[in-house]
Amino acid sequence: MYTISPKLSGERFQVTYRFTSTKQEAEQKAMDACLEQTVEFPADLLPPGDIPDFIVGQVESFSSSSDSTHLVTLSYPVENAGFDLVQLLNMIFGNSSIKPGVRVEKLDLPQSILGQFKGPRFGQNGLRERLDAPIRPMLCSAIKPMGMSPKDLANQAYQFALGGIDIIKDDHGLADQVFSPFEERVALCAEAVAKANAQTGYKSIYMPSLGARADQIQEKAHYAKQNGAGGFLVPPGLVGFDMMRLLAEDDTLALPIMAHPAFIGSFVTSPDNGVSHYALFGQITRLSGADATVFPNWGGRFSFSKEECISIMEGAEVSMGHIKPIFPTPGGGMTIDRIPEMLEVYGRDLIFLMGGGLHRIKPTLVESSQYFRDLVEKM
Amino acid sequence: MYTISPKLSGERFQVTYRFTSTKQEAEQKAMDACLEQTVEFPADLLPPGDIPDFIVGQVESFSSSSDSTHLVTLSYPVENAGFDLVQLLNMIFGNSSIKPGVRVEKLDLPQSILGQFKGPRFGQNGLRERLDAPIRPMLCSAIKPMGMSPKDLANQAYQFALGGIDIIKDDHGLADQVFSPFEERVALCAEAVAKANAQTGYKSIYMPSLGARADQIQEKAHYAKQNGAGGFLVPPGLVGFDMMRLLAEDDTLALPIMAHPAFIGSFVTSPDNGVSHYALFGQITRLSGADATVFPNWGGRFSFSKEECISIMEGAEVSMGHIKPIFPTPGGGMTIDRIPEMLEVYGRDLIFLMGGGLHRIKPTLVESSQYFRDLVEKM
Repeated sequence: MYTISPKLSGERFQVTYRFTSTKQEAEQKAMDACLEQTVEFPADLLPPGDIPDFIVGQVESFSSSSDSTHLVTLSYPVENAGFDLVQLLNMIFGNSSIKPGVRVEKLDLPQSILGQFKGPRFGQNGLRERLDAPIRPMLCSAIKPMGMSPKDLANQAYQFALGGIDIIKDDHGLADQVFSPFEERVALCAEAVAKANAQTGYKSIYMPSLGARADQIQEKAHYAKQNGAGGFLVPPGLVGFDMMRLLAEDDTLALPIMAHPAFIGSFVTSPDNGVSHYALFGQITRLSGADATVFPNWGGRFSFSKEECISIMEGAEVSMGHIKPIFPTPGGGMTIDRIPEMLEVYGRDLIFLMGGGLHRIKPTLVESSQYFRDLVEKM
Repeated sequence: MYTISPKLSGERFQVTYRFTSTKQEAEQKAMDACLEQTVEFPADLLPPGDIPDFIVGQVESFSSSSDSTHLVTLSYPVENAGFDLVQLLNMIFGNSSIKPGVRVEKLDLPQSILGQFKGPRFGQNGLRERLDAPIRPMLCSAIKPMGMSPKDLANQAYQFALGGIDIIKDDHGLADQVFSPFEERVALCAEAVAKANAQTGYKSIYMPSLGARADQIQEKAHYAKQNGAGGFLVPPGLVGFDMMRLLAEDDTLALPIMAHPAFIGSFVTSPDNGVSHYALFGQITRLSGADATVFPNWGGRFSFSKEECISIMEGAEVSMGHIKPIFPTPGGGMTIDRIPEMLEVYGRDLIFLMGGGLHRIKPTLVESSQYFRDLVEKM
């Protein structure tokens, strides 16, 4: 008998998968996933003892919501996840990501795993405090378009801030480009927002994009903080979820983080594969330390359904021990006329993200921003 | 007129997308992608001049392979990609990843972009030299299952190496777990392989998995090298493509890298979305510095088709300037009887990856490995 149980706590975490297939196939796929996600070894070749008894995944529940859709909860020992977000994600969906017809629906993580993560540093309450917005929804816009000079982008940031936009972020396509070098842009934009704040008394913040080289992200974050940035836009699909966690947990940075979905959409574009909106943009993004999760609102220029958007909000707020709830930040083609409907669906705990739409309301960006803010404050 | 052209070289890179929709919709989607992937701004709001003329994507070609399938090549100025793999991937598929019915088919990158990357340090020729295998296909296996002690895994590594397996890698589920701490495992396995090499004269190498925290990957890589590891297994879907590039380009490491597809499968599980096998496991993996690209062979326990596997081989070998060709490494349920058929399809420039199947051939792992090697050498 191969014994390792003295090293195991006996505690397990759970992942609920949705299998799209016949019931019989789904039962087989669930058994396969128990091996595929752990030992990657034929069951009959495993040494008898603790490896098949504990290390291998176990089917905790199986229910069919239709002839072709089956929800299966598997459990794995917490020790498989190795105190590490990368390995936790690997345990959740490493090899299974390569198999069609299986989708991660939700995670149930015990305190022994949650306790390994700080989660969002600010969360909803902390961000509200920092932005001096105790009750109302918050406003976000992006400086754009790509190709503009740092000076012109900073002028845009200044106008947004004068008008009362709370979070002014880099468009996610802004990087370290010849027409807009990172350091120059960040310094000018942060300065512009500070200047506006001094005039308005608002507490707007500027968030530069940290879609950057793995060996430069941290130094760029520090440069940005030293030069007055008030937070960071981070695309975990491009830089890795654990890089976002690292930025969030860094006490020498200690600034709010907004997650951007660039490059990661393929996880949700097929309903039968990948990861659910709830788990990806909600639970995983949150566990990785983001204080706000950007996603395309329904009815804009992307294709998320209203139900999918609601599920993101639920994943952003569901109880996860000490891991704070974070703000859903729907965007992607938002216009002023969507506000009432969005408030009704999301409630007040959200960040409105309006990009291009904000340029059409009034003759100047300041007026448009003021109009947007007034409208939201009155609701 | 908004002028930035003095800062632009005029050179553009191309991405070919496949749109699944009617022809009319595809034409609209292609125009949308030109904006979505760059300025994220309504065309009528752009300042006239160089931004619409150069920064915005341009449709270079449009061809329909059926009523519902359209290949569209878009071009972007090389400057949009900001000398940075993260931003290059963002330009290729940032926001478009969130839209269903669009798939990245292939990349055409000019020397001004390719020149920013070292690519694979070894590539096919370099790895052949290092493994003393000038002509034959190479053999790879994984130490497993998860749950085994470092000592037992090292014993497995020893037997594989004695039998002539060229690359002995960690199973990708092995991390830094209580039952197999990284440092202890790496030291013992590297030592075991060195001991076997001293007996056989072979040049087998041990590759630990670097699926680890963003702030620990580099130190783990250095620890592994100092303790005799001969390469690294890296899962770019979990740690980020740019982290793999960083490891590959680090002259103080200078060891071969094998890319593992964990967590990244969702990019290819739906035929209408994500990234093609060719671009993802071929071109992008290679640009990110891997010397070998692991993927599930057709007919095993995953679902890639023979054509998809061939396309990965093509992406791994297609001319890309100084970026070296790399080894397709098909695995995922491989057995001995597949060898002739695989040789016929892939040719000799490949690495056979056999895991569980290697445990069934002969009474001991040494004998099984020897049998596998003899068989391949004879072909």
